[in-house]
Amino acid sequence: MLLVRPFDIEIGQHKVMLNIVDARERGLNPGDRVRVRAKGAATTALLDTTTQMVKPGEIGIFTEALKDLNNPVDVDILPAPRPASICHIKSLMDNEKLSEDQIRTIVQDIVDNNLSDIELAAYVTASYIHNMPSEEVVWLTKAMIETGERIHFDTHPVMDKHSIGGVPGNKVSLLIVPIVAAAGLLIPKTSSRAITGAGGTADLMEVLAPVEFSAAEIKEITEKVGGVIVWGGATNIAPADDKLIKAEYALSIDPYSQMLASIMAKKGAVGADAVVVDMPVGPGTKLPTADDGRTLAKDLIDLGDKLGIRVECAMTFGGSPVGRTIGPALEVREALTLLENKPGPNSLREKSLSLAGILLEMGGVAGRGEGYAAAEEILSSGKAHAKLMEIIAAQGGNPNVKSEDIVIGENCEEILAPAGGYVVAFYNKRLVELARMAGAPSDQKAGVIIHKKMGERVKKGEPLITICSSSDWELDSAVRDAKRSMPIVVEGMLLERYPRITEL
Amino acid sequence: MLLVRPFDIEIGQHKVMLNIVDARERGLNPGDRVRVRAKGAATTALLDTTTQMVKPGEIGIFTEALKDLNNPVDVDILPAPRPASICHIKSLMDNEKLSEDQIRTIVQDIVDNNLSDIELAAYVTASYIHNMPSEEVVWLTKAMIETGERIHFDTHPVMDKHSIGGVPGNKVSLLIVPIVAAAGLLIPKTSSRAITGAGGTADLMEVLAPVEFSAAEIKEITEKVGGVIVWGGATNIAPADDKLIKAEYALSIDPYSQMLASIMAKKGAVGADAVVVDMPVGPGTKLPTADDGRTLAKDLIDLGDKLGIRVECAMTFGGSPVGRTIGPALEVREALTLLENKPGPNSLREKSLSLAGILLEMGGVAGRGEGYAAAEEILSSGKAHAKLMEIIAAQGGNPNVKSEDIVIGENCEEILAPAGGYVVAFYNKRLVELARMAGAPSDQKAGVIIHKKMGERVKKGEPLITICSSSDWELDSAVRDAKRSMPIVVEGMLLERYPRITEL
Repeated sequence: MLLVRPFDIEIGQHKVMLNIVDARERGLNPGDRVRVRAKGAATTALLDTTTQMVKPGEIGIFTEALKDLNNPVDVDILPAPRPASICHIKSLMDNEKLSEDQIRTIVQDIVDNNLSDIELAAYVTASYIHNMPSEEVVWLTKAMIETGERIHFDTHPVMDKHSIGGVPGNKVSLLIVPIVAAAGLLIPKTSSRAITGAGGTADLMEVLAPVEFSAAEIKEITEKVGGVIVWGGATNIAPADDKLIKAEYALSIDPYSQMLASIMAKKGAVGADAVVVDMPVGPGTKLPTADDGRTLAKDLIDLGDKLGIRVECAMTFGGSPVGRTIGPALEVREALTLLENKPGPNSLREKSLSLAGILLEMGGVAGRGEGYAAAEEILSSGKAHAKLMEIIAAQGGNPNVKSEDIVIGENCEEILAPAGGYVVAFYNKRLVELARMAGAPSDQKAGVIIHKKMGERVKKGEPLITICSSSDWELDSAVRDAKRSMPIVVEGMLLERYPRITEL
Repeated sequence: MLLVRPFDIEIGQHKVMLNIVDARERGLNPGDRVRVRAKGAATTALLDTTTQMVKPGEIGIFTEALKDLNNPVDVDILPAPRPASICHIKSLMDNEKLSEDQIRTIVQDIVDNNLSDIELAAYVTASYIHNMPSEEVVWLTKAMIETGERIHFDTHPVMDKHSIGGVPGNKVSLLIVPIVAAAGLLIPKTSSRAITGAGGTADLMEVLAPVEFSAAEIKEITEKVGGVIVWGGATNIAPADDKLIKAEYALSIDPYSQMLASIMAKKGAVGADAVVVDMPVGPGTKLPTADDGRTLAKDLIDLGDKLGIRVECAMTFGGSPVGRTIGPALEVREALTLLENKPGPNSLREKSLSLAGILLEMGGVAGRGEGYAAAEEILSSGKAHAKLMEIIAAQGGNPNVKSEDIVIGENCEEILAPAGGYVVAFYNKRLVELARMAGAPSDQKAGVIIHKKMGERVKKGEPLITICSSSDWELDSAVRDAKRSMPIVVEGMLLERYPRITEL
């Protein structure tokens, strides 16, 4: 028997620690699995070894495993086999074919936290290097759907929308969802929060209403008002993706087969019949060229076919922000302005109507080629606005909110054009960085207003952007950073000066 | 400022934990690096997030980082850049060329524990999938040498020996080192402990003397008596390898380029001028065919050339154990028997003399083709035995030890041939499993004695193997296991019976 030393730290995994002497005596090595048996309870855990933290005769047990074992005083351990997944991950490394069962086993082990960081990273790295054949991607997608919660609607068709991302200010879901729902179609839109961006759709919607709901609640609200805009991370829909993101983020990679599967698994799990995929292409996006976009479109449509989901893809221009705002409150205000039929940016209106129009056509409520006009009618008539208010109310927000009610950070500063001329360079990523420095997305009121876009004419001293924040020191740091390296370049402008003046 | 919650657990890494709310507010994600500043101290750490373990306003700090910060009460944090290595690892995934500097940076970050398990696993996985070009392997080897301790001898040549492994009972170093040292050459042999085997050379030598010494002590002892047999893991020689083994073991992979570099880095770091590499080939080894052996030999010789180390490789038969014992004390007894010029197994004697002979030729103390005879003379004359006793004394063991003094586990049981005939199948890995079940290598006295090898004739009821252990229950379990699935098959023997009788 080993005396338990409780390590009350949640580490997201069942883990135990043995003194290296005990481990050696048992022929165990770090990374092995052990079966831990206490009185009336047992669990399997990953083993680590130490020379100091636990003495011979002791075993350190972390929170997750302690719970399973009901906080025992002493335990027995036995070697346990490694999850079969590790063998299948090795096959993936060797670029061998995987069977449906093998893929399913890997996904189940990921969902159940049965893989160590090392094993998870090996899977992600091997997926990145070797693209899976399309048959395996289908199996992967199905496994991702089946290892989580699913929504089954009685009414059809169920519509959905996804954006590949990579373009800032992309608040189109705030217009598309109410337009589609107002047309009588169901659209249970789960979305993400920003990881490296200045605000995901979930961050935006949170300005207007709560966004954390269970799958059952999503179904209920969608059936009641036609649509939702919620945070997918609060559900257990396609949960493998959230675990994989950890390793993908750490390595800054987005394995292609895994991306296809993750997108379609989320759509399949909410029971979508038809999906439009927004594909921003252009410099600085995830799809630098139209050819990249076409390949992805073809693969997504093929994958959808095999899953029984109709997919249409729309390539959109991703070289500059959608609309003229970046940051949760600013973007929400801009979207509401358009829904209220007040003047607003054309890029946002056009893109939203085009994508919504495709969904109306796919959903059979508009004829082929007539979706845009139908969407426009729903927007102009105020039906889309009324529908968004219904959705806000159903999610527990204030249904009387108006664009002018949306509060923006009180600390704002304009960045002026240091020279006159045309805008000749426009750095999306810099704008996102500035919005984040100002506090977005956790400071909902922080962000960037864009006054001049690519190709526009600007006079010396005119504002290029305005940066806003709830905090004066965050605003200062963003402003200093903007001046040090301008996100928007006007021809003839001095780009840099040597020696650099770091404190302006 | 964040209030420190100390997590007094060594996890081999600088790590801190933030509440997810604080992390989000700062735009930080799990896997990011942060600069942690306390009064008068600062360090960089990997970030993880939690919803429970630390409250907003708090920061959990693990032992390693706590030490660097002198156990502060509160700290400040700032985002810190990721190690450049992560970018270079991404290049490796993309099969892009790496520069010498980039490889050096990766190795340094590995040695400094700057990479998370995820990043380390990505490196190992990418190395496994994409072999490095030979130029990069040279840089990798040099980086592995330079990031650890090195030994510089004044006397030359310095000889060394390495075995690729994969064959049980390979106690040849216990003969080779004293033969080479007795010939007047230096041979500072660092060796490994068993990870999945029944005893590495370090485990064997430990039966005779302490094996944990610093690089300085290795130099001193080698200069005094001509050789050592020590555990490499106790030194800081080529330390990157020990860190990589963690991920390689967890994934059961041995990336080829990394293997080449690890072998030669250990030899380079002890200042070896000439190395003989023992390559067991055959079914069940790491080198199934002679062609695999030839490729590896060519690559090792090329790599040696570029590092200024002469390498010769000797393919040996790896299909059955070397000698007739497996397990530390049994193997040591067998080796001592031969050194004492008592009758012993030919396979062990021949292999040891051949490899020692190559080293004598490479070291210039025997003419080409005359090494074997020279080695045999040193063995027969008792000089090798005297030299091993000198080495044992220098390492702090008993220089009067005799083969009959070596104590074997008192619980022994023979496994008898259930039928008569020739041995037609022989499973090395099963024998190692049985030795491990009996307690080897941590129970030095446990192991397996082999009475019949491949092709030998056996009568019904004659012993095939004897299993020994210090513990009666470990012996029982090994014996039961041996009977359930025999490691040695005699033609005509019943292989399995259905229904299986699990308790014999």
